[in-house]
Amino acid sequence: MGNIHGRFEPSNSTDKALLIGSHMDTVIDAGMYDGALGIICAISALKVLRVTGKLQRLTRPVEVIAFSDEEGVRFQTTFLGSAAVAGILPESILQVSDKSGTTVQEALRLNSFEASAAALGQVKYSPESVGSYVEVHLEQGPVLEALRYPLGVVKGIAGQTRLKVIVDGSQGHAGTVPMKLRRDPMVAAAELVVTLEGLCKDPSRFLTYDEECGCFTEESLAGLVCTVGELLTWPSASNVIPGQVNFTVDIRAMDDLVRETIVASFSRIVMQRCDHRLVDCAVEHKHSAAATPCDPELTAQLKRATRSAVSAMAPGGHGHAGAESTATPVLMSGAGHDAMAMARLTRVGMLFVRCRGGVSHSPEEHVAEDDVWAAGLALLRFLDQHAVAEL
Amino acid sequence: MGNIHGRFEPSNSTDKALLIGSHMDTVIDAGMYDGALGIICAISALKVLRVTGKLQRLTRPVEVIAFSDEEGVRFQTTFLGSAAVAGILPESILQVSDKSGTTVQEALRLNSFEASAAALGQVKYSPESVGSYVEVHLEQGPVLEALRYPLGVVKGIAGQTRLKVIVDGSQGHAGTVPMKLRRDPMVAAAELVVTLEGLCKDPSRFLTYDEECGCFTEESLAGLVCTVGELLTWPSASNVIPGQVNFTVDIRAMDDLVRETIVASFSRIVMQRCDHRLVDCAVEHKHSAAATPCDPELTAQLKRATRSAVSAMAPGGHGHAGAESTATPVLMSGAGHDAMAMARLTRVGMLFVRCRGGVSHSPEEHVAEDDVWAAGLALLRFLDQHAVAEL
Repeated sequence: MGNIHGRFEPSNSTDKALLIGSHMDTVIDAGMYDGALGIICAISALKVLRVTGKLQRLTRPVEVIAFSDEEGVRFQTTFLGSAAVAGILPESILQVSDKSGTTVQEALRLNSFEASAAALGQVKYSPESVGSYVEVHLEQGPVLEALRYPLGVVKGIAGQTRLKVIVDGSQGHAGTVPMKLRRDPMVAAAELVVTLEGLCKDPSRFLTYDEECGCFTEESLAGLVCTVGELLTWPSASNVIPGQVNFTVDIRAMDDLVRETIVASFSRIVMQRCDHRLVDCAVEHKHSAAATPCDPELTAQLKRATRSAVSAMAPGGHGHAGAESTATPVLMSGAGHDAMAMARLTRVGMLFVRCRGGVSHSPEEHVAEDDVWAAGLALLRFLDQHAVAEL
Repeated sequence: MGNIHGRFEPSNSTDKALLIGSHMDTVIDAGMYDGALGIICAISALKVLRVTGKLQRLTRPVEVIAFSDEEGVRFQTTFLGSAAVAGILPESILQVSDKSGTTVQEALRLNSFEASAAALGQVKYSPESVGSYVEVHLEQGPVLEALRYPLGVVKGIAGQTRLKVIVDGSQGHAGTVPMKLRRDPMVAAAELVVTLEGLCKDPSRFLTYDEECGCFTEESLAGLVCTVGELLTWPSASNVIPGQVNFTVDIRAMDDLVRETIVASFSRIVMQRCDHRLVDCAVEHKHSAAATPCDPELTAQLKRATRSAVSAMAPGGHGHAGAESTATPVLMSGAGHDAMAMARLTRVGMLFVRCRGGVSHSPEEHVAEDDVWAAGLALLRFLDQHAVAEL
């Protein structure tokens, strides 16, 4: 599938392998650290083990994988490399084509990869051979920057629901229809956008007795995000009350019950408000994916490794300027990662690295050099705990 | 300018002329009555006067004008015909061109009209020669239908302000930015859209002490309309918190002070809400036009004429089925009409005719035949009062 693998196999080990990886591809403006950072950290950590003479002390196979196509830009299907390793790619993927009509199979053959269905089957790892998967990645969000901490461990990758809400009202002249006689889908849609935000920030204000799942904690609220990214009006003229407005809704949460409760409550509120405003509304479900929890043991090990690395670099140690608190932040990942596919094969753990400006798409220099060093050191400390025998 | 005039000149009259008119052009889906109804009513009323032998009893010149270009579809400039008669068209209008590059001047010459600046000057009527202008037009709104009354008199044409509101926030990934760290222009814009509606429905809830103009009465509120017809988001993807959202605002009111107060209050609220949400907002003023009041005497005459016509057609009379109340509705016109241009020349009065479905753009049969008859009869009764001498 175009992945690149590097594996160290201890001579006497029968243990399952530790896989460490991230992706080689990226998107425009994501900067030079997206994906590549995780691969370089893994290679660097193993290099340090070799240089310090610890490589021979590894108790289990350790394999670094640079995954080929995580973004899905060319074939509109994400996680090609990691899904192949996890064994969740259907054979039909080979016939998916890009905009120019070239299929995945043809693209792989042009790069000298045998891309038969049988070859695809051989890329798959057997679950028995793998003990865990760990990934270092940019946060691509603002949380670590806001917390002034260079690294964070990931408790899981959020589940996601995508909806499309269609609001039909009465198109009319902006000058001739009195406010009281309007069935204006624009105001109805705007009210729903504001309500969605309120629902995600403070669900208890909006939930009915039946919807009270008891699942809303401070933690679940912190991980819950709701976004309206697109809103289209028709006919879209300044002097016409629109006849139709539709908008997208993206709801993510670490807890699937929280997400499902929000989706159900929002759908109910849409119908209620639309009835009240005498407009016709429809809520279309476009996509749903369950959350991917990270393994608690791996997460605990990554947390210890992070604390150790950050304190080693703190003033008095090697001087990490950016860490102002001592507890390692535990984050949810709102975006998808190769770890999401790998979770279908084995238990997973993830380490996030702080971004400047809190944004995913920004110029190259959006990660501080110190934070990159901290990530490498944390991964090394993780290996120390996880795969290196004490002398 | 392409207008068509028909004039009856009494032999011994030195009185100022009564002009009655509307426009010949229309837009797609406005139906066969838009504009044409007013012209046909005027011609029909004069025809009835001739048939009944009353034409010779006219005490003043009566002129029917079919205006050429009210809609402004071709040259993007409205009221070409009536503005020429009113004398408010600048000479530069002759050089305005349509999409294909043809100028107004060329278009008129292709239709055998001499379109020099001098000829344009001759189209202008002298204010001394004109006593009043009256127009019958479709309501193109839902008020008369809601009141179950076939006709209404117009107290004036609303003033209008058009704004563009630009909201800049922080673009971000829908999954990675926690709700509390967002500077989301979509939610800010949605909140402003909802607030604008509230401000137009119940201004007192939003006004500061300084803004209390004392101008909000039940009547001014009924005439106040606020519309967001266009709303654009950027970059407009379902998984991206937008970086910018902008929207149009159309505010109309009969009372200019009411409109100006709403514009000022809304602008203040925009800044307040945007500060609160840490987004950057700008309010651009695109267009402002003062209201055009109709003449109280003409309006009173039209009101009497309407009552007389509707009761003549009521059950027991000729049977007008649609009139359930006896007081003639007095409406504001939210849309522009030729009367708006003609008000620059003389005092104006307008009569509205009920539409089915309350909409301006609908299939042809959107006016009941009885209502057309009522309009013609009302105009005849108006002429009886205004220009016909008793024997």
